[in-house]
Amino acid sequence: MLGMYRLSTSRRPRADARRNYDRLLAEADAAFRERGVDASLESIARRAGVAIGTLYGHFPSRRVLVGALLRERNETLFELGDGLLAHQTPDALATWVRAATAHAATYSGLASLLASGLDDEASELHTSCLRMADIGERLIAWARESGIVRADATGADLTALTTAAAWLREHMSLEGADRLITLTLDGLAPARPTLAGTR
Amino acid sequence: MLGMYRLSTSRRPRADARRNYDRLLAEADAAFRERGVDASLESIARRAGVAIGTLYGHFPSRRVLVGALLRERNETLFELGDGLLAHQTPDALATWVRAATAHAATYSGLASLLASGLDDEASELHTSCLRMADIGERLIAWARESGIVRADATGADLTALTTAAAWLREHMSLEGADRLITLTLDGLAPARPTLAGTR
Repeated sequence: MLGMYRLSTSRRPRADARRNYDRLLAEADAAFRERGVDASLESIARRAGVAIGTLYGHFPSRRVLVGALLRERNETLFELGDGLLAHQTPDALATWVRAATAHAATYSGLASLLASGLDDEASELHTSCLRMADIGERLIAWARESGIVRADATGADLTALTTAAAWLREHMSLEGADRLITLTLDGLAPARPTLAGTR
Repeated sequence: MLGMYRLSTSRRPRADARRNYDRLLAEADAAFRERGVDASLESIARRAGVAIGTLYGHFPSRRVLVGALLRERNETLFELGDGLLAHQTPDALATWVRAATAHAATYSGLASLLASGLDDEASELHTSCLRMADIGERLIAWARESGIVRADATGADLTALTTAAAWLREHMSLEGADRLITLTLDGLAPARPTLAGTR
């Protein structure tokens, strides 16, 4: 009986912690969808029925919380990217940019968060940004070699486009963002007359 | 003497009001440059040496204050736009987009403010947004007729590009924003193969 009691006390805290963790994630997802990634962490803790200290115990910063929330969606996006790299169909770049844009627009304010912070090198959010950038770099390298984009096209072009289009989706319209993607991808096509005068 | 006194008392309030107005504008410009358009209005009033009620007396809302601050810069931009429309040089569109982008990035957060609010139809900020959109529409109409942009190019394309590039300048880099402008303008050039698959 003593053994069972010990087992029980050693397990319950972990079970409680897991339940709190899941509740916090669910409430944070609801709050971020409703009010954007700047939603009050105090209010998220309250709705999850835990103290703010418990929230910080699981998620030391807002970025860590966002990183945890995006984990599953990130994996789905990375699988898509890997598949596009493997199959190399002509629409691979467009498919990637549109999927990455939708991803970066999951929550209001997420595009700003992604654009602002590459200074927390240990965070999951940072790691997933690097992985997205890496997929973009490899897709562009393949597209350059295949001659379907201009010679000066870079992965940074895709990152800038994706982030700006995600912000446009939020602040202007889905149509406006999609149109910017279309025009920029067309601008990435090789060897054409230029309006911008810098090519 | 009585006449002079009356003159003096009737003029002083107006002179005080004018001085407060100018001080508020100067402090708001400094605060917005330092902390963006979301800077505290209370702190602006305090630094201008007036009560918050005096600030609201001159500027009933943050958007009215921003509109007043942008007045001179708007006039300069509109003159540029009118000149571009009059002279119709091949680089007119690129010049306009780059100038309008720099304008929309005057303060941090301004791009979001411009993108968000077209619901206050009486405001000076709204009127200047309409004037900017009108110049863009007329430049695109001329460029379409001249065959230097694709047939489906619209003024809305320029507005979306300008706003997104202004946001990128602020959140990513000047170079990233300028590159997006170059690629999108190239994408607006007529009749080319497409990557986006929607043309």
